[in-house]
Amino acid sequence: MNKKLAIYPGTFDPVTNGHIDIIARALDIFDEVIVAVLVNGSKTPLFSTKERLSLIKESTASLKGVKAESYDGLLVDYLKSKNCNVVLRGLRVATDLDYEFQLATANNMMDTGIETVFLMTSANYTFLTSSVVRDAYSHGGRLPKFVPPAVHTALVDKFKK
Amino acid sequence: MNKKLAIYPGTFDPVTNGHIDIIARALDIFDEVIVAVLVNGSKTPLFSTKERLSLIKESTASLKGVKAESYDGLLVDYLKSKNCNVVLRGLRVATDLDYEFQLATANNMMDTGIETVFLMTSANYTFLTSSVVRDAYSHGGRLPKFVPPAVHTALVDKFKK
Amino acid sequence: MNKKLAIYPGTFDPVTNGHIDIIARALDIFDEVIVAVLVNGSKTPLFSTKERLSLIKESTASLKGVKAESYDGLLVDYLKSKNCNVVLRGLRVATDLDYEFQLATANNMMDTGIETVFLMTSANYTFLTSSVVRDAYSHGGRLPKFVPPAVHTALVDKFKK
Amino acid sequence: MNKKLAIYPGTFDPVTNGHIDIIARALDIFDEVIVAVLVNGSKTPLFSTKERLSLIKESTASLKGVKAESYDGLLVDYLKSKNCNVVLRGLRVATDLDYEFQLATANNMMDTGIETVFLMTSANYTFLTSSVVRDAYSHGGRLPKFVPPAVHTALVDKFKK
Amino acid sequence: MNKKLAIYPGTFDPVTNGHIDIIARALDIFDEVIVAVLVNGSKTPLFSTKERLSLIKESTASLKGVKAESYDGLLVDYLKSKNCNVVLRGLRVATDLDYEFQLATANNMMDTGIETVFLMTSANYTFLTSSVVRDAYSHGGRLPKFVPPAVHTALVDKFKK
Amino acid sequence: MNKKLAIYPGTFDPVTNGHIDIIARALDIFDEVIVAVLVNGSKTPLFSTKERLSLIKESTASLKGVKAESYDGLLVDYLKSKNCNVVLRGLRVATDLDYEFQLATANNMMDTGIETVFLMTSANYTFLTSSVVRDAYSHGGRLPKFVPPAVHTALVDKFKK
Repeated sequence: MNKKLAIYPGTFDPVTNGHIDIIARALDIFDEVIVAVLVNGSKTPLFSTKERLSLIKESTASLKGVKAESYDGLLVDYLKSKNCNVVLRGLRVATDLDYEFQLATANNMMDTGIETVFLMTSANYTFLTSSVVRDAYSHGGRLPKFVPPAVHTALVDKFKK
Repeated sequence: MNKKLAIYPGTFDPVTNGHIDIIARALDIFDEVIVAVLVNGSKTPLFSTKERLSLIKESTASLKGVKAESYDGLLVDYLKSKNCNVVLRGLRVATDLDYEFQLATANNMMDTGIETVFLMTSANYTFLTSSVVRDAYSHGGRLPKFVPPAVHTALVDKFKK
Repeated sequence: MNKKLAIYPGTFDPVTNGHIDIIARALDIFDEVIVAVLVNGSKTPLFSTKERLSLIKESTASLKGVKAESYDGLLVDYLKSKNCNVVLRGLRVATDLDYEFQLATANNMMDTGIETVFLMTSANYTFLTSSVVRDAYSHGGRLPKFVPPAVHTALVDKFKK
Repeated sequence: MNKKLAIYPGTFDPVTNGHIDIIARALDIFDEVIVAVLVNGSKTPLFSTKERLSLIKESTASLKGVKAESYDGLLVDYLKSKNCNVVLRGLRVATDLDYEFQLATANNMMDTGIETVFLMTSANYTFLTSSVVRDAYSHGGRLPKFVPPAVHTALVDKFKK
Repeated sequence: MNKKLAIYPGTFDPVTNGHIDIIARALDIFDEVIVAVLVNGSKTPLFSTKERLSLIKESTASLKGVKAESYDGLLVDYLKSKNCNVVLRGLRVATDLDYEFQLATANNMMDTGIETVFLMTSANYTFLTSSVVRDAYSHGGRLPKFVPPAVHTALVDKFKK
Repeated sequence: MNKKLAIYPGTFDPVTNGHIDIIARALDIFDEVIVAVLVNGSKTPLFSTKERLSLIKESTASLKGVKAESYDGLLVDYLKSKNCNVVLRGLRVATDLDYEFQLATANNMMDTGIETVFLMTSANYTFLTSSVVRDAYSHGGRLPKFVPPAVHTALVDKFKK
């Protein structure tokens, strides 16, 4: 019964408490969530695919039903390989819905059985993005309330001279 | 197991093919969807609560797992009475996310277990709202591709002099 | 040759310099512009249909190719009666595109030959609406740079005790 | 030296913790903040002007430099009467900037010395509005973390049968 | 009589059915439309200028009154060289109006006679952009309903190993 | 008394009349404004840090209370070094509030005493950005009404062959 699996794609560079919040909410609705790290995005990531997967796994260790995998190529093909038809996305009030709908529509154009499910990020995380986190730590800032402990440590390490 | 039930609240004055599209998509994810018609909204509806429920039932007769009910008072209380923690909402690219997040947050403020799930409306229905439909029929227009047959007939009747 | 006529529908309660700006720009592209005052909108207007038409005529007297008319019912039917397929709308950066697209799509749903043309309002008029004008004059304010002289006089008269 | 006074206009029906947050932030920048309750808005308020002023005073009693007053007519005239040239407004990420800029521009059109200063609402209050509060309490909901104690009590009283 | 010519500038990398839709609509209003391919944009295009022009020509062969040209430098200068004062742009509900208005205003700042005309993209193409198309085909996806046949073939060829 | 100082951070590549407008408005509220040029942004600037500082100084020479400085690293640290807790930002109607709130929130996450104050740009400058200016001059355009004279000269020089 494939309706209970959702795939949560993204770059997760790195995973933040906002992502963890979405994953935890999704587990109220789905039996299993696969966090799917896109391998070849257009930008050079701060953390390697392996590091990003490792940080996701460590940060979701206490949540039952979460897996972390990487994928390359079309999301549609990855979904098929998992026999899954649900894409999960987090929604902030300022989310660029145009971009989200372009992604979702492109998936629909090619395989109409795919559904994108949006869950609302907690108000506390309204302005939290991986980019804000990277930027803060790169300049010596610290955001321990907004990233999992493993990510905090990894970021401090990454920017240590 | 209450995770498989979703409640889809709204005024549905009247239900359109856009709403039917969301209901059908939700049935890929949930086992049951209750379409919940709000009784005492701030505006005088075109169709009575009874008429709106009847049109929803007729228009979703071929979909397995759909119920239509009315509710009054706090959505949170209605959800509790149904032992349900999932609110379903349709999302158009131009959706007023602020309003949706105000609603969802008000629910969360009072009962943190409630989750709002947003599904994307089909591109064909991006600009279809009950208000557009009412306005067209009230001036003698016809939109048979955008409303269920029962709604088309009810609208023509309603505005017949 | 009906392609040279555009119909500019609205409430024009009252016409402002922003509207005049759009009309003047449209005359660079179309041979004739009919300013079409909607008779039965949902709100009670400040100026009667007759007053609004009179103010438009006076304010556009120096522009060649402008007519002012009132219409009731479906815009689509009014366009047909004029053998016109072009609707003209002004676009401010903060325009509610959703509302505009709902209107335009409703027209398209019923008569696919109708085209909506959007022209950009001058930056000076970015925040100028009839509502701002009514509100200012009703409290004793004056905006002579933002409304035609005839409208200024009519507003001062209207709110004189 | 009038640059240290800011006037914070609104309906405050009722004042929420979001408003209190903005007032407290403003006091880091200005020496005095006058919370100015608009008497004759277009809608019938839940609380009378007198009640709204009383709730603001009680809720800001611990903040040094805050006054609450009511005003009627043009904001510009009220500012002049106070010898003040700064309007204070709270900004949520989903704030309708068009509406805010229409207000601010109307003020500027009539008296160019007036400046509108926007301060950012705390993320916790991103979706908190007086309307959400009124709606929740009217249906028996309670939001004690989002309104001052005096407002909570007044709301419970107001909707007691 | 130069009012009947419109210039439709863009990168068209590649032209999609959304662009063709706008061109066809424009031909209801203008006698001639020049599709103007910008040569030196900031990004490296997938298709060369020559390829893009060729695909536009092939895809618009059945439309009377369409030309395809390339231009470099200021759009204002290109318009002057064509004795044209109308810029044509497609408008999706999620269009970044700020960007469009920056472009249009920059043109106006330098030559006030230039008018930008916006036409509304069909709802079917609300989320269709050249970027979505490139991304899909680059990963092995196919969108034959959303691009002209010549573009489909060219994309398949381009990404063939 | 540090409440009278505001720091206005940005790239200012180059400073425009829109920036000067914000600085002049801020001087109605603050006693001193430091225009703070970010040294290491992600993009290669057109003008060097030294050139940008020099253009700001020359363009604000007639305004009392303005300084121009450069800074590197975290804005929070720079503010502390200046004993300042107020960040100044200009707000256009189409401002990306999400980006602004991400910045402001990141500052708040690390030092809750920092306040971001937004002032509204004049309607004339609604679509004026440094990017529009650079683009126009690079192609031979001229915008003397939108940049200070020193910037106009510097831009003409920069793109002279």
